[in-house]
Amino acid sequence: MKRLLVIGGSDAGISAGLRAREIDPSWGVTLVVADAFPNYSICGLPFFLSGETPRWESLAHRTRAEIENRGIELLVDTVAEAIIPAEHGVRVRLPNGSERVLESDRLVIGTGAAPVQPPIRGLDAPGVHLLHTMGESFAVHEHLTAKHPRTAVIIGGGYIGLEMADALRHRGLAVTLFEAAPAVLQTVDAEYGQRVQEELQHHGVHVRTSTPIESIELGPEGLVVRSRSHETVVADLVLVVTGVRPNVNLGHACGVALGEGGALKVNRRMETNVPDILAAGDCAETLHRLIERPTYLPLGTTAHKQGRVAGESAVGGYAEFRGSLGTQVVKIFELIVGRTGLREDEAMRQGFSPWTFESVTWDHKAYYPGASRLRIRVTGDRRSRRLLGAQLLGRYGAEVSKRLDVFATALFHAMTVDDVAHLDLSYTPPLGSPWDPVQTACMERALAAPASDPRKDA
Amino acid sequence: MKRLLVIGGSDAGISAGLRAREIDPSWGVTLVVADAFPNYSICGLPFFLSGETPRWESLAHRTRAEIENRGIELLVDTVAEAIIPAEHGVRVRLPNGSERVLESDRLVIGTGAAPVQPPIRGLDAPGVHLLHTMGESFAVHEHLTAKHPRTAVIIGGGYIGLEMADALRHRGLAVTLFEAAPAVLQTVDAEYGQRVQEELQHHGVHVRTSTPIESIELGPEGLVVRSRSHETVVADLVLVVTGVRPNVNLGHACGVALGEGGALKVNRRMETNVPDILAAGDCAETLHRLIERPTYLPLGTTAHKQGRVAGESAVGGYAEFRGSLGTQVVKIFELIVGRTGLREDEAMRQGFSPWTFESVTWDHKAYYPGASRLRIRVTGDRRSRRLLGAQLLGRYGAEVSKRLDVFATALFHAMTVDDVAHLDLSYTPPLGSPWDPVQTACMERALAAPASDPRKDA
Repeated sequence: MKRLLVIGGSDAGISAGLRAREIDPSWGVTLVVADAFPNYSICGLPFFLSGETPRWESLAHRTRAEIENRGIELLVDTVAEAIIPAEHGVRVRLPNGSERVLESDRLVIGTGAAPVQPPIRGLDAPGVHLLHTMGESFAVHEHLTAKHPRTAVIIGGGYIGLEMADALRHRGLAVTLFEAAPAVLQTVDAEYGQRVQEELQHHGVHVRTSTPIESIELGPEGLVVRSRSHETVVADLVLVVTGVRPNVNLGHACGVALGEGGALKVNRRMETNVPDILAAGDCAETLHRLIERPTYLPLGTTAHKQGRVAGESAVGGYAEFRGSLGTQVVKIFELIVGRTGLREDEAMRQGFSPWTFESVTWDHKAYYPGASRLRIRVTGDRRSRRLLGAQLLGRYGAEVSKRLDVFATALFHAMTVDDVAHLDLSYTPPLGSPWDPVQTACMERALAAPASDPRKDA
Repeated sequence: MKRLLVIGGSDAGISAGLRAREIDPSWGVTLVVADAFPNYSICGLPFFLSGETPRWESLAHRTRAEIENRGIELLVDTVAEAIIPAEHGVRVRLPNGSERVLESDRLVIGTGAAPVQPPIRGLDAPGVHLLHTMGESFAVHEHLTAKHPRTAVIIGGGYIGLEMADALRHRGLAVTLFEAAPAVLQTVDAEYGQRVQEELQHHGVHVRTSTPIESIELGPEGLVVRSRSHETVVADLVLVVTGVRPNVNLGHACGVALGEGGALKVNRRMETNVPDILAAGDCAETLHRLIERPTYLPLGTTAHKQGRVAGESAVGGYAEFRGSLGTQVVKIFELIVGRTGLREDEAMRQGFSPWTFESVTWDHKAYYPGASRLRIRVTGDRRSRRLLGAQLLGRYGAEVSKRLDVFATALFHAMTVDDVAHLDLSYTPPLGSPWDPVQTACMERALAAPASDPRKDA
């Protein structure tokens, strides 16, 4: 029996294993999982910690039994220590401390990402947590439930930082959030980051932007968080969530080349430069569909897709990763913010001739109760009129995320800005307009007739 | 100055006028509107009648002033009586009763649709209303507010009938809904119609399917509605909403050919066979994007698009209608039901080799509060594996309609069922899953490996 070994039990690893068995059940599949939590939804941790998801067990996308019933062998609490390409082997440390070399015909590396350790003194102080794994979440949960902290500082205003601000407010803590950049949520334009900040403040989060942190130390009153400009806040709990970097040591040590963002270099089939070794998920680089070049965009959605392709490729199927658009969405209190494709500044750097226009419309006909304002920024290319990206911001319940997905689907097909108006989208007054906001955003006059409209030149 | 005349002040007519002025402001544009309500949202009438939209004036997509400020002349309460192609003229009856011939270089016919009068005796009894125009809505509103009816019968289980059942329950009336067919909402599969029926019943609507009505007569207790099987219900108010037919008399009388569904025949530029006469909206046939043939699919969304194309074509621009997918959605109490593309039976009739599979998933990760079941039926073609259509049913708030729009956008681009999994859609636990339900519906095993999978044959 041929055997596929997968290192990693998160999104990419599980997807690879499941797809391999689906494509060719004659292959044996073994997953090496460093902790005891295969196939957990890391994206769900803030909701476990907020209390909205009371049982951590429910964060599992699938139970262990469900995975094993698909013919996958799970080796949990088993740490991969080295890949030995010459032997087609992986040396692992078993739960009992002993070592063993597992042989396989193909290997998928799905070692994920690790939290960035920012240059802050005192990250090891008790009560300071870097939030990324189930284990760290349990530590935070233990802290929250056993020590009943009343104040928290969050360092980092990205997705997880913002979700954790929401989560800790949900628990009733006083929360201060520090962001080194001038606005939170750097993945969207600063104006949208500003609106997110207003939402945070509206819900009682104290937000300090442009405020890099220098040190944390345990004082008599609690953890003293000090900024470079010597501002201090004292808190019972500090969360550090300043992004992630690809976890590549294992792959790199055995000869896998690194690519964009220091991630494992892969082709569209998720193959690395080392024969019979593939990589997928947050440890691997990501083909960007629009610019047709590798990027580093660690996202759960991408990890699932890449893992699926890797699993199919590994057992001799033919699959290709079609590329990411960086589509992402987040809920912060009652606000939903998302983006797909390129922003104007990113498009500019990629050699496009972008222009961006914002429209503000009702999410559905204003005469039907409950209408709310929906903001859409569309970025297009002046020369080709191609749609390059969209950013959306609106209220929870306003179908913001799936409107974003209409843009993502349009981008996938390289539509022009103009052609979006031709889409046959659904309409009923409680949910939309005869021209959906997605379309009116693309029909704004400023977009309909940019300075260098090629149709006018023709 | 060149002049465009538009007959009709609803979606198609207004869109044509606005687009014409946008494309070439040197044209004069005159709209002939039979009543006093240009640019009203007919789709909003049920919400006016439910009381959820208290002011009928707010149903206007735009005010009269907004339309006139775009350089459009509005002749309201003006009835077009005949088109005289030889004179490039239209004979109209003005509000004061006098007649006049309006000349123009181009003419857009946007006369819409009229309600079907079913073969029921007694449709003219007092208290019986055919609901389609603003005028008829005022009559119903007057009836509701002045006579305080306590019971209502609705004849017809299509969109408007269902929305009116919801609306009248909202007002506290006892409602009986009759449908001649075996299930309500014939636009979706009977199983989904059945679920809509359950939702109606859950909210106290008495639903009688397979029950064609024979007569209505005014008795001492109220209006006696009698079915062909001699079942009777007595009610204070009867609404008859059994579909629409294209309003083509004006166009047909002057030589415009009829096409599919007896609607005015048009090409992709919305031109009729008569020079300088175009048609758009519910009076015109509709190119179906999937089957690339004309159909009759009267929808507000399509009327807007066709009107826009007609307006651009009329003043010498180049525009083409890219086709409808029949995308439509409706809210019935707390249920959202929609469809796009072809159902299995329709696909079969069009020569496809369709297969349909239903998936039932949570709308978002079940560990986050408020998850609800989302049903998706995907129809694909066995041979080409092309996506042919989708039907969705879920709860209000579950982003059902914009998920439908992801399918509509995929259909617009002739995607295969398999390729839907490659779309880079957004994910956050409160709003979706790493594979959106749209994708899992296309990844179901039954779809992934149909009996005659061409990839397996290769």
